[in-house]
Amino acid sequence: MEAARPLDALNAARNKRVIVELKNNKQYVGKLKAFDIHINIVLEDAEERIDGETKRKLGVLFIRGDTITILSVG
Amino acid sequence: MEAARPLDALNAARNKRVIVELKNNKQYVGKLKAFDIHINIVLEDAEERIDGETKRKLGVLFIRGDTITILSVG
Amino acid sequence: MEAARPLDALNAARNKRVIVELKNNKQYVGKLKAFDIHINIVLEDAEERIDGETKRKLGVLFIRGDTITILSVG
Amino acid sequence: MEAARPLDALNAARNKRVIVELKNNKQYVGKLKAFDIHINIVLEDAEERIDGETKRKLGVLFIRGDTITILSVG
Amino acid sequence: MEAARPLDALNAARNKRVIVELKNNKQYVGKLKAFDIHINIVLEDAEERIDGETKRKLGVLFIRGDTITILSVG
Amino acid sequence: MEAARPLDALNAARNKRVIVELKNNKQYVGKLKAFDIHINIVLEDAEERIDGETKRKLGVLFIRGDTITILSVG
Amino acid sequence: MEAARPLDALNAARNKRVIVELKNNKQYVGKLKAFDIHINIVLEDAEERIDGETKRKLGVLFIRGDTITILSVG
Repeated sequence: MEAARPLDALNAARNKRVIVELKNNKQYVGKLKAFDIHINIVLEDAEERIDGETKRKLGVLFIRGDTITILSVG
Repeated sequence: MEAARPLDALNAARNKRVIVELKNNKQYVGKLKAFDIHINIVLEDAEERIDGETKRKLGVLFIRGDTITILSVG
Repeated sequence: MEAARPLDALNAARNKRVIVELKNNKQYVGKLKAFDIHINIVLEDAEERIDGETKRKLGVLFIRGDTITILSVG
Repeated sequence: MEAARPLDALNAARNKRVIVELKNNKQYVGKLKAFDIHINIVLEDAEERIDGETKRKLGVLFIRGDTITILSVG
Repeated sequence: MEAARPLDALNAARNKRVIVELKNNKQYVGKLKAFDIHINIVLEDAEERIDGETKRKLGVLFIRGDTITILSVG
Repeated sequence: MEAARPLDALNAARNKRVIVELKNNKQYVGKLKAFDIHINIVLEDAEERIDGETKRKLGVLFIRGDTITILSVG
Repeated sequence: MEAARPLDALNAARNKRVIVELKNNKQYVGKLKAFDIHINIVLEDAEERIDGETKRKLGVLFIRGDTITILSVG
C-alpha cells in the first residue's frame, strides 16, 4: 500500500472483508461497500462480534463514523 | 447493493423496516421515512427495544444523528 | 407522515405534545413551540419526568440540541 | 410565547430569572444577561445549587454552552 | 454589567481574578489575561484547586475551551 | 526536529515506526503510511498492544483521528 | 505576559519546557516545538508522568488537541 491519504487506504479496501471496531467495543465484520469523509461506513454481509464471537448477522449495515475507532483489512 | 456513498444505502432503505441502535444501547425498530447528512433519522411505527424486548410503541420517532451507532436493514 | 427530511417531521409536530429524551435519561413532555437545525428545542407547559413520574413543572423550557437522543409525538 | 426559533425564547427570557442545568447535574440560577448561538450564557447574581440547595453565590457567571442541558424560565 | 453578548462579560473580566471550572471538576484561579471564541483561556498567577484547597501554583496557564464548564469573576 | 506546525512532525515520521494511543487505552504500533488534518492515521504492519503486550497483528490499519490521544516516534 | 489572545501565550512558550495535561489525567512534560489552532501540540524530549512520576521517555510526541485540558509553562 502506498497511500498518501488515509481515505486512499479505505478506497483500496473497497469490496474486501474488513473489521470495524466501535467506541462501545463492538466489532463488525463484512465487505466494505461505501464510506465518506466522516468515515460513515456501509458493510455488506455484516456480522456483529463481541469478544470474537459472532452474535448477529446483520446484512447491509450502516455504521456512523464518529462511533468508529479502527478499521482493519481482515 | 452497489452504493458508492453511505447515504445511498440509507436511501435504498427508505420505507423499509430498519433497526437503529444508539450509544446508550437502546434499539429502535420502524419504517425509515427520512434522514439527512447528520444521520438524523425519522422512523414510522417505531418501537423501542431493550435487550431484544419491545418496551414502548412510539409512533413517529425522530432520532438525533449523533446518538446513533448503527442502522441495519431488518 | 410523508416527510422527505427529518426536520419536516419536527415541523409537523409543532404545537403538538411531544416527548423529548436526553442523554442523561431525563424525559421532558410539553408542547413543541420551536426548533432549529441543531435540534435545539423549546417546549411550552413542560414537565420533567424520571422513570415515567412527573418530577417538576417547568413552564417554558429550552433544551440544547446536542443533549437530545429522541423526540416522539406523544 | 410564540417563538418561531429557540433563540427567540432565550431572548424573551433576557433580564428574567432563569434556571440553567449542566451535564454534570449542577444547577445555576440567576438573571439572564447574555447568550449567543453556541448557547454560551451569562447570568447575573448567580447561585449554584446542588440537589436544590444553594451552595455558592457567584456574582457574574459565564457558562459554556456545550455543557448545558436545559434552561427554564424560573 | 450590561453585556449584550457572553464574550463581553469575559472582556469585562480581563485582568481581574477569575475562577474557571472544568468538566473534570478541577478549579483554576488566576488573573484573566486572554480568551478567544472557543473560550480557550489564559490565566496568570494561576493556582489549581481541588475541593477548595490550593494544590499547585502554575504561573501562566492555558486552558482549552472545550474542557470548561463555568467562569466566574471571583 | 524544527517543526513549525504539528503536522510537520507527523510528516517527518512518515514511513517510520510509530506508537499511537487511543482514548480507550489501546496502543497500536506500526509504520506510519498516511495521515490527514483530522489526524486520521494509516499504519502498515500494525500490531495492537494492551498493557505493553502484543494482542493482535492487524496488517493495514485505519485509525479514526478523534479517538487518538498521542502519537510518538517509537 | 501581555497576551491578547490565548495562542500568543502558546507562542511565547515555544522552545520552553511545558506541562500538558490530558482528559485521561496523563501528564506530558517536554519542550514545546509546535502547536496549531486545534491545540494539537508537539513536544520534544517528552516524558509521560502519572501521579507526578516519570513513566516513559517518548522523544518526539504529537498530542491531539481535543484530548488536552491545560498547558502550563513549567
